[in-house]
Amino acid sequence: MKSIKEWTYSVEVRRDVVSTAAPLLRAMGERRCLVVTTPTVHNLYRELFGAMVDHGQGRMHVHVTGGREAGKTLEAAWAICRKAAEGGVERNGVLIGIGGGVCTDLTTVAASLVRRGVAIVKVPTTLIGQVDAGIGIKGGVNEGGAKNYLGCFHPPEAVFVDPAFLQTLPAEHLRYGLAEVIKIALVGCRQLFGTVVDWGPALVESGFARPADMAQEVIAHAIELMLDELRPNLFEDQNNRRAVDLGHTFSPLIEGATDFALHHGAAVATDLALSAGIAFELGYCSQAERDVIHETLSASGLPIYHSCLTPELCWRAMERATAHRRGAVNLVVPAGIGQVAFVEQAVNVPVALLAEAIAHLGRRQQRWLGPARVVAYQPLY
Amino acid sequence: MKSIKEWTYSVEVRRDVVSTAAPLLRAMGERRCLVVTTPTVHNLYRELFGAMVDHGQGRMHVHVTGGREAGKTLEAAWAICRKAAEGGVERNGVLIGIGGGVCTDLTTVAASLVRRGVAIVKVPTTLIGQVDAGIGIKGGVNEGGAKNYLGCFHPPEAVFVDPAFLQTLPAEHLRYGLAEVIKIALVGCRQLFGTVVDWGPALVESGFARPADMAQEVIAHAIELMLDELRPNLFEDQNNRRAVDLGHTFSPLIEGATDFALHHGAAVATDLALSAGIAFELGYCSQAERDVIHETLSASGLPIYHSCLTPELCWRAMERATAHRRGAVNLVVPAGIGQVAFVEQAVNVPVALLAEAIAHLGRRQQRWLGPARVVAYQPLY
Repeated sequence: MKSIKEWTYSVEVRRDVVSTAAPLLRAMGERRCLVVTTPTVHNLYRELFGAMVDHGQGRMHVHVTGGREAGKTLEAAWAICRKAAEGGVERNGVLIGIGGGVCTDLTTVAASLVRRGVAIVKVPTTLIGQVDAGIGIKGGVNEGGAKNYLGCFHPPEAVFVDPAFLQTLPAEHLRYGLAEVIKIALVGCRQLFGTVVDWGPALVESGFARPADMAQEVIAHAIELMLDELRPNLFEDQNNRRAVDLGHTFSPLIEGATDFALHHGAAVATDLALSAGIAFELGYCSQAERDVIHETLSASGLPIYHSCLTPELCWRAMERATAHRRGAVNLVVPAGIGQVAFVEQAVNVPVALLAEAIAHLGRRQQRWLGPARVVAYQPLY
Repeated sequence: MKSIKEWTYSVEVRRDVVSTAAPLLRAMGERRCLVVTTPTVHNLYRELFGAMVDHGQGRMHVHVTGGREAGKTLEAAWAICRKAAEGGVERNGVLIGIGGGVCTDLTTVAASLVRRGVAIVKVPTTLIGQVDAGIGIKGGVNEGGAKNYLGCFHPPEAVFVDPAFLQTLPAEHLRYGLAEVIKIALVGCRQLFGTVVDWGPALVESGFARPADMAQEVIAHAIELMLDELRPNLFEDQNNRRAVDLGHTFSPLIEGATDFALHHGAAVATDLALSAGIAFELGYCSQAERDVIHETLSASGLPIYHSCLTPELCWRAMERATAHRRGAVNLVVPAGIGQVAFVEQAVNVPVALLAEAIAHLGRRQQRWLGPARVVAYQPLY
């Protein structure tokens, strides 16, 4: 038995979702529809939901789900499924997820299950969602402390990214999103990294509103880089070397160790910092490159160290990643700025090296007391 | 964003699963493995499970799930997922479902969720599983009375069909399986239909052991026909005219109306009988063809009528199928023996016609008091 399946979907950065709701109303069409959102988004964007309810004429229902990582459970996805059943969503229906990564992840899992897979439209409202979680094809829920142990690959019908949502986002969350922007810049683009160094703090302060051209540039560029990385291995079955796993080997266990109290973006920042340290120790990047990564993260208000970081936790993380990546850890580390290298086996990252890299982060974090001009950056660009 | 994915899997009819366990041990290999089965199968085939446990050396765990349709819930699939997590099943692990359609459906749903999709090997132990539920790519669980409202398309890695399992199956369940064999014969092969007419009762009586060549012929032929039908539209996204939906438009609501007390196979038989009646009324098959279908079902000990059958239930079923099949009911009816026709719109099946077809079934079922020689069959073949 042999079969081939093809998927196509679009990710559109556009400014008219919040202001006119037009793209969403067109996407809904005449279909039965369940809109899934979070309490915060539901409260902040009443006009948007009002327009959708009016358009839906009884064919559309709204389900408010929690937006926190700790609530990203199969139970929560199941509740969405039940609401879809009650709302009469059948195979030709659509689920629309409007919220952060937790919300779009839950909605994706539910959409993959309802009638064995119905259409989903994603509207990420956080920076992390707009440049990372919301634009791929994965949904996930946590199980027994294991992040995204359950989930699906379920391509969306469309993704609408409206930077206007970011104006209501707390600065803290914009910083978490910057962690993913820094990640994708490290993976594929020195220029984007430079833009973040130059404009990151101003963008965070203005809710990604000013400078408008830089906000647009950072988001669109990060999305483009991400899609370029995802495209050749969308279902993660072509190979086990995913550059976008940078920052995502240690972070799941860092999140788990804090019972998901530490935000995903903060854990990714810490992982990126550690990965840069490992890269330096292994000779993949220079000391100056390691330092500029650490300083850029710190200057963006992101942590580069957490007290739960131990060589033992790192080893468990690498063991888990090895199982997940089918037999080799393929630890992604920055090879300079804008490209990565893969450390194939965990044995190449000995405990003493990890201990040194972690200790260095502890010292740096103590020294670094807040945003400041990135001194070490100048000579590199 | 565009991507293509290709799947291949094999369905092997083989006689050495029960006797040697060899194909399963090879399939397990060194992988972490969760075997999912039912209490009945677990009790009857202790040696098979013993061999797997020995081979697994701690990497393999067994989870016993319910085998009844009423227990085919997301809760039950979730329990399998939790057991997989506890057993350390990661992305390179495998789930093996050994049981009837409910068991392999639940295992498929769980396998599709664990780490966003791990390998599944299916070992259907019932006739209905061996010729239908267990050889496709679908998993499903019921939700709020809607059959398979939730589920997945998740191609197996391999399917092993061993007719030896059928020797411990109650005659009643063999009959339910015959309903699916009759279905696929009506869809695609007069010859297989003739074989069922000639040998069905003997096969049921002997636990599909004698005549051995006929047992092999019926199972292998039914599987081949089924795979031929599935292949061009494996994900049901190419078109909404699936010949194998014959017998599966009214049966979900018949099952639901009896709270799943009526077995799927019995509901399918009733649906087939009704579909033949509708086909006759609409001129798609002759009276003799309709009658031989009714008589073959009855001679196989299958019901052709249920008191819950009303035109109203049939209309609700067609409405639901219309939603499921994206806007047209495409009701499948036999066009003679060995091919089908599609009634595109529900309005082409008026209430009066349904009432007449249902009334006819009621009269036939009353007259038909048990297995007997199929008289009307002779002139047709």
